[in-house]
Amino acid sequence: MPMTAPSAAYTDLAALRSEAATLTSVGALAMWDQETYMPVGAGAGRAAQLGLLARLVHERDTSPRVGELIAACEADASVAGDDRLAASVREMRRDYDREVKVPAELVEEIASTCSRAQQAWKGARKASDFASFKPWLGKVVDLSRRKAECIGGGDELYDVLLDEYEPGAKAAQIEAVFTPLRERLGAFIRDVQTNGTKPDDAPRRIHAPTTAQHDLGQRVLKAIGFDLDTGRLDVTTHPFCEGVGPGDTRLTTRYREDHFTDALYGTMHEGGHGLYEQGLPKSGPHYGTPLAHSAGLGMHESQSRMWENLVGRSLSFWRWLLPIANQAFCGALGAFSPEDMTRAVNTCEPSLIRVEADEGTYNLHVMLRFELERSLIRGDLSVDDVPGAWNERMKSMLGLDVPDDARGCLQDVHWSAGLLGYFPTYTLGNIYASQLWETIKADLPGLEDGFAKGEFAPLLDWLRKNIHAHGRRYPAVELIERTTGRPPEPDPLVRHLESRIRPAYGLG
Amino acid sequence: MPMTAPSAAYTDLAALRSEAATLTSVGALAMWDQETYMPVGAGAGRAAQLGLLARLVHERDTSPRVGELIAACEADASVAGDDRLAASVREMRRDYDREVKVPAELVEEIASTCSRAQQAWKGARKASDFASFKPWLGKVVDLSRRKAECIGGGDELYDVLLDEYEPGAKAAQIEAVFTPLRERLGAFIRDVQTNGTKPDDAPRRIHAPTTAQHDLGQRVLKAIGFDLDTGRLDVTTHPFCEGVGPGDTRLTTRYREDHFTDALYGTMHEGGHGLYEQGLPKSGPHYGTPLAHSAGLGMHESQSRMWENLVGRSLSFWRWLLPIANQAFCGALGAFSPEDMTRAVNTCEPSLIRVEADEGTYNLHVMLRFELERSLIRGDLSVDDVPGAWNERMKSMLGLDVPDDARGCLQDVHWSAGLLGYFPTYTLGNIYASQLWETIKADLPGLEDGFAKGEFAPLLDWLRKNIHAHGRRYPAVELIERTTGRPPEPDPLVRHLESRIRPAYGLG
Repeated sequence: MPMTAPSAAYTDLAALRSEAATLTSVGALAMWDQETYMPVGAGAGRAAQLGLLARLVHERDTSPRVGELIAACEADASVAGDDRLAASVREMRRDYDREVKVPAELVEEIASTCSRAQQAWKGARKASDFASFKPWLGKVVDLSRRKAECIGGGDELYDVLLDEYEPGAKAAQIEAVFTPLRERLGAFIRDVQTNGTKPDDAPRRIHAPTTAQHDLGQRVLKAIGFDLDTGRLDVTTHPFCEGVGPGDTRLTTRYREDHFTDALYGTMHEGGHGLYEQGLPKSGPHYGTPLAHSAGLGMHESQSRMWENLVGRSLSFWRWLLPIANQAFCGALGAFSPEDMTRAVNTCEPSLIRVEADEGTYNLHVMLRFELERSLIRGDLSVDDVPGAWNERMKSMLGLDVPDDARGCLQDVHWSAGLLGYFPTYTLGNIYASQLWETIKADLPGLEDGFAKGEFAPLLDWLRKNIHAHGRRYPAVELIERTTGRPPEPDPLVRHLESRIRPAYGLG
Repeated sequence: MPMTAPSAAYTDLAALRSEAATLTSVGALAMWDQETYMPVGAGAGRAAQLGLLARLVHERDTSPRVGELIAACEADASVAGDDRLAASVREMRRDYDREVKVPAELVEEIASTCSRAQQAWKGARKASDFASFKPWLGKVVDLSRRKAECIGGGDELYDVLLDEYEPGAKAAQIEAVFTPLRERLGAFIRDVQTNGTKPDDAPRRIHAPTTAQHDLGQRVLKAIGFDLDTGRLDVTTHPFCEGVGPGDTRLTTRYREDHFTDALYGTMHEGGHGLYEQGLPKSGPHYGTPLAHSAGLGMHESQSRMWENLVGRSLSFWRWLLPIANQAFCGALGAFSPEDMTRAVNTCEPSLIRVEADEGTYNLHVMLRFELERSLIRGDLSVDDVPGAWNERMKSMLGLDVPDDARGCLQDVHWSAGLLGYFPTYTLGNIYASQLWETIKADLPGLEDGFAKGEFAPLLDWLRKNIHAHGRRYPAVELIERTTGRPPEPDPLVRHLESRIRPAYGLG
């Protein structure tokens, strides 16, 4: 293959984008700090910082010079001849065309409002006081609608928001996948609940001191390949992963001393996100370009769910972890076998909190939020009616009564953070993860036997090569098709859930 | 007094300065994070962030629009008629004229080099490996000289650097104050060492668990009026106070379980800085203007040293703190009286580490650094010779042999952070603090009796009103003269040291 000189236009464009990325990384640090260590009284100042940074990034994202350079790259044969660069320019065009339609003042208003809304949400959640959060939710919904109206496109306003997180996805398509999946999951959960025997929960309910959990979490992260020299693990109300910048990927979790597997799986989940961030080619010439970004949030979530569930709830994983965890907790797990642990962590039981939900019921939580936020954006649901609509769906979909809004519609950070359109990517992630898993198991015989010996590198290597290294070169749907040979489909997810949950409940 | 409409030019200028201040505050957060929680592998990315932010701030500091607005304010009768605004414009002119002379590339190079130099320093200090830090020190000295050459003015290059931290000060004047003070302190220390009886160190050497020290430190901060809702206390190698922005003042300290007063006084020291930051009028129309900034580092240091030493090493302070500390350390201080504690913390004994040095010998540490860095900037001393010059002076000034560079020339963060010209402000701070103290004691009879009851508000109120509220309205020398009736002079410092140390050593 002949070597061509790198396009001057592309080089200039990447340099410009790198400056925007550096400013974005500063904002990511400020957001991480807001959730971890920021004094409560710094809220107004933080909102001003985030608003200003958002405006500066937006100025760079939408500068006429960027538009000129993208056009120059599109006309450049040396770019067209290089698949990766051509994909990078295609994605920059996509982002640019979206961004230039949103006025700078709106961008700054969204950033600053959401910073304050998140702070209001924290207080409201603590006091289970929806009334104090309601005006902020109203503002966020209004700003999201205004933003979507500026950008335009899609079959409905919600599509425009969704497209930011899952490029090219449409609400109607999501609904078409979710509706039958909801039926199948509902039937499956009813069957398990009715005919199965609930596994003994005792292995999860031992007393596990916070510091021992924290040490164990870091040990697991290290084992699965998360580099703690270029990352951290801290404690927040709502766990998250923030890819701050090159060499800086930060995870958070939260601990309950009477339920250690919550934090364990929360940590593995965020760790899965973190492995993707650490695997993206951020250091070097692609920094700031789509090649250094993920292929969307569905794919990102597939990585977190794979480590949390496909790996973390397998029998072979517990063959490795159980003696280590038992030692960490001073023998408190001594009475249990890997089989006991595996059954306990594959319980399928309707519950109130999404981030603590089991794999079987989790997607119903996601569908509930998808329906509500789509209705909010459509204007079919007013913010006043959110608690009622939430509680009604929790009853119809999961059979549960919601005791208070803290355990209901105030439980998630997303709406306060302006992340409307984000929730469906969680279930897309589960679908992608299970589909990838079937391919990976076929590609790597003995994979799970390795887990039992603490060997996770073959899996990470496979993901690095087939997913992480590509960045946003391929849209998620195409990447799934290239790696698995089929378009995304929910059957592997249902097969996976059945294969794990049915045996845990003593069903054939 | 007739109300005048605020000058439009001044309002515009303050708004522009507020944006620069917000960017500066983001940089302050990134610097705080670099010292506290940043993963080691994020160093290169952090350097790029700090470099970019420094450039963006510099662009705003030096924009022609700022120059025009300053000129418009200088010609504006409504500004001239308002003492505070006139002072604010005078100081903005000063800053602007300095800043426009430094090229943006140099500003960015300094920020990014110092970020990497600080990381190199951390490793070098840990390994006591001066060789690995030497090239960075060379770069920092070179960049400092280049910066001073760009700005010009002063009788020597060092003056230009000093002027950044202590506006208007000159190295020769500092030397003229330091030389006789050095003589008097040297004689005083020799007298105490020769004729006095060293106080029993036992009260400082109890076992004090880190968590108990941390709780006690926070309790003391709260008692002296530091607002932990708009501030924090964390752990770093080198303690500091970072006034991140409005509502966000962050302190750090470090703990030794066999020497709890190190952290106690470190925390009170940074707490004193923090009280000044929290007392500056940052929230509101003056944000970003000199009225929301301190009157220089000497005045800043006077606040930290006042709380650390004038308050914290007094007998009445220990009458209050001893029972609290004894309870915090599970009775480990039960055998000691407030008098024992006071004597122990007024020991005067040459030692290697500046931040752990006692009040009597501390200023000799400062003078040593002042001499070395002035020689480095003059070109009289090469970076190769720094360890030798350091060790030779430690012998001649304090009579000590330096066992390794970690406890010698690698102990302080300042040079790696590019803070040449900063050290003399420490001793100026001690001079200002003692002089203010004599005035405060005359103004507030019963002040120290209040300390014994945990009442510190009268002192803080006095400082808020007479020092903090003014921001940079008056130069430090003028502020001292306005509040004490005399220009700064070292006699109160010597009187203070004698009044505390001589009794501790059983001398009349």
